[in-house]
Amino acid sequence: MTTLALTGGRVLRPDATVIRADVLIDRDRGEILEIGPDLGGDAVETLDASDSLVTPGFVNGHCHVAMSLLRGYADDKPLDAWLREDIWPAEGELTAEDVRVGAELGLLEMIKSGTTAFADMYFHVPEIAAAVEEAGLRARLGHGVVTVAKDEEGAHEDMETSLEVAEEYDGAADGRISTAFMPHSLTTVGAEYLEEYVPKARELGVPIHYHANETEDEVTPIVEEEGVRPLAYAAEKGMLEAEDFVAHGVHVDESEIGLLAEAGTGVIHCPASNMKLASGMAPVQRMREAGVTVGLGTDGAASNNDLSMLDEARDAAMLGKLAADDAAAVPAEAVAELLTAGSADALGLESGRLEEGAPADLAVLDLEKAHLTPRHDLVSHLAYAAAAADVRHTICDGQVLMRDREVLTLEESAVRERALEAAEDLAARVNPTE
Amino acid sequence: MTTLALTGGRVLRPDATVIRADVLIDRDRGEILEIGPDLGGDAVETLDASDSLVTPGFVNGHCHVAMSLLRGYADDKPLDAWLREDIWPAEGELTAEDVRVGAELGLLEMIKSGTTAFADMYFHVPEIAAAVEEAGLRARLGHGVVTVAKDEEGAHEDMETSLEVAEEYDGAADGRISTAFMPHSLTTVGAEYLEEYVPKARELGVPIHYHANETEDEVTPIVEEEGVRPLAYAAEKGMLEAEDFVAHGVHVDESEIGLLAEAGTGVIHCPASNMKLASGMAPVQRMREAGVTVGLGTDGAASNNDLSMLDEARDAAMLGKLAADDAAAVPAEAVAELLTAGSADALGLESGRLEEGAPADLAVLDLEKAHLTPRHDLVSHLAYAAAAADVRHTICDGQVLMRDREVLTLEESAVRERALEAAEDLAARVNPTE
Repeated sequence: MTTLALTGGRVLRPDATVIRADVLIDRDRGEILEIGPDLGGDAVETLDASDSLVTPGFVNGHCHVAMSLLRGYADDKPLDAWLREDIWPAEGELTAEDVRVGAELGLLEMIKSGTTAFADMYFHVPEIAAAVEEAGLRARLGHGVVTVAKDEEGAHEDMETSLEVAEEYDGAADGRISTAFMPHSLTTVGAEYLEEYVPKARELGVPIHYHANETEDEVTPIVEEEGVRPLAYAAEKGMLEAEDFVAHGVHVDESEIGLLAEAGTGVIHCPASNMKLASGMAPVQRMREAGVTVGLGTDGAASNNDLSMLDEARDAAMLGKLAADDAAAVPAEAVAELLTAGSADALGLESGRLEEGAPADLAVLDLEKAHLTPRHDLVSHLAYAAAAADVRHTICDGQVLMRDREVLTLEESAVRERALEAAEDLAARVNPTE
Repeated sequence: MTTLALTGGRVLRPDATVIRADVLIDRDRGEILEIGPDLGGDAVETLDASDSLVTPGFVNGHCHVAMSLLRGYADDKPLDAWLREDIWPAEGELTAEDVRVGAELGLLEMIKSGTTAFADMYFHVPEIAAAVEEAGLRARLGHGVVTVAKDEEGAHEDMETSLEVAEEYDGAADGRISTAFMPHSLTTVGAEYLEEYVPKARELGVPIHYHANETEDEVTPIVEEEGVRPLAYAAEKGMLEAEDFVAHGVHVDESEIGLLAEAGTGVIHCPASNMKLASGMAPVQRMREAGVTVGLGTDGAASNNDLSMLDEARDAAMLGKLAADDAAAVPAEAVAELLTAGSADALGLESGRLEEGAPADLAVLDLEKAHLTPRHDLVSHLAYAAAAADVRHTICDGQVLMRDREVLTLEESAVRERALEAAEDLAARVNPTE
């Protein structure tokens, strides 16, 4: 058995307490063997975690990782104009190779900011899967489908692709990759396609992931045409099961919160994206009180503009208080959960908690920083003050992906260089006169 | 003449364009001599800025820097309970030495995050001034006065202290320190004291800085008792002049926005603090459209919980859109201004713009980061994606305060160590049973 011990750190437990302990990992099985004092002597290899906080690796519950290539490409526009004038034309030019390069860039950023697992909706999924396999993270991947702008044949083809991808890649990369069926949203996919393909996804046994209630514009048409709220409509279509998870959930009413809680369907809160696109404030405190499983996601880098889950944690705490009009809402302990176990539970992953037998997915944060001094409360620091660059080591499935800020699975400068070139080429193709 | 050249960088100009240029600095006068190509050969000393963005040093328009010692001490409570149960009892135990240590910790964090100037309201100001002199930043300092909880003698004494501090330290540290008269807010200082002391502050020729319209609770009593909005009341008391600046300005109505614009009084927006304390959303877009000078501040670390102006910039962009219900509001270019010239103008400082003859106050951000790749738009990166740890060099008044992440004016590990000890002692004094 190849063992690895993280020694001398302070360990964040699932109950949001912090204890001084070592963590012993079985690298072969990718599992946590033991959490306790003085485990360094038992290990084949050790990794220093002194003056550091050892947390579960962060779980980014909703992303479009390849959009990292479009970071800063267009900002500060209303959602509709931003999509139609900038994002969709650029995405129309993205090649499979661009998606690979963009995914590697995003994965590099994830590793550097302590993220060990994520859910992703995009296209050219085989490229994303290959990047995930190389980078060493855990992921639930899917092919996003929009039918509204397509003819019938094209719509069916896209639906089939989403099913095929879900079937082919489930269990890939030694089980680190799982999949989901991913209709884009309740308003961009026709009812007839949901009725036909949702049962097929159920036959495959994969969860369903989609955008829901992100803006009022996603609510009103369904209420007007179907006579029910969007999540009631989703339930009618069989898309509100315990294994499913929706992104955003900004404009959900009490009846929908009840449906989510009852079904066990997870909600991935994306506070930065919701603010940047002026979508609104999700009722995170209310959803948690009602028993909804709530996780956290960055959305794509084009609407964020980074993939740091620690930024998202801070945003979730801040926005959660504003939405509830209560400074006591979404406290630091809740944020620690959103960031880790909340997202993992929503995605149906075993990670997100540091305990014996759990997947060895961890982030180690250096506390020897001015902005993390003094140390009245380390959970408060995690929620409010810690930043991506504080992450020293990132470990996923028992493998060290980053050691002392050096990423071991991707060649950082080469990834950045390729992304710079691909982004320049892309911009030139989209705007040839520039 | 001792010159310093920043070479090979991209320089953020006051009009929010970015050009490739070197920056030549006269270190003796602390001024920018020239911005243009190939200036390295003319300089006594050079500092590498290749693959970096050179911006004005960030100006933190409202802070209580010594509260860094209370970072994470208490969170997630309604404002009133937080102040009465936690912050005030802890502040009651703060010694002059604690304030010195807390200030050094905060200044260390400021330098590490590219801040070169700030406004500060606290007590034991001589300790803060000494720390500023040592650390090398620029500051407008003042002694904050509350009269409501004091007897008449105590209130007058506190007012006198605020005037004395404003007089004694104006021009200290070779002119890097300026001062202001700082009544805490319009509701915590009695009208009779404002009537007596505001004219005395005017005689000294110092600006007046105070909290205004932070919460509804700061608005309602004035409207009820005085029959006018708080900023009309402030104008009546002579506290709304062009040199004055207020913190927060969350709950300001159109009439007050008009008063601010007409008077030229600056508003320091503190988005993180306003979210964390659930105070509300300041109408930043509306104020800017009306011609109000708007700057940006972190407030104290206890309600933030960091002093990074880049976090604040991101928060300002995000919250500004949500407040305006418009994704086009408070765009990246506006944020670049809030962060630099906006705050500097509000505080009456000459810094905040990179141009010939301006104070040599600069921050240099390393762009060779995954989260700053690709480079479609560097101003977008500054607003949305850059983080404190991206700051390579910090320069104030022509002096290098940090070079390649090494702070030269403060001994980082010693400052952190002293802060850890002081915070532990403080917590033990406040809660002796713990």
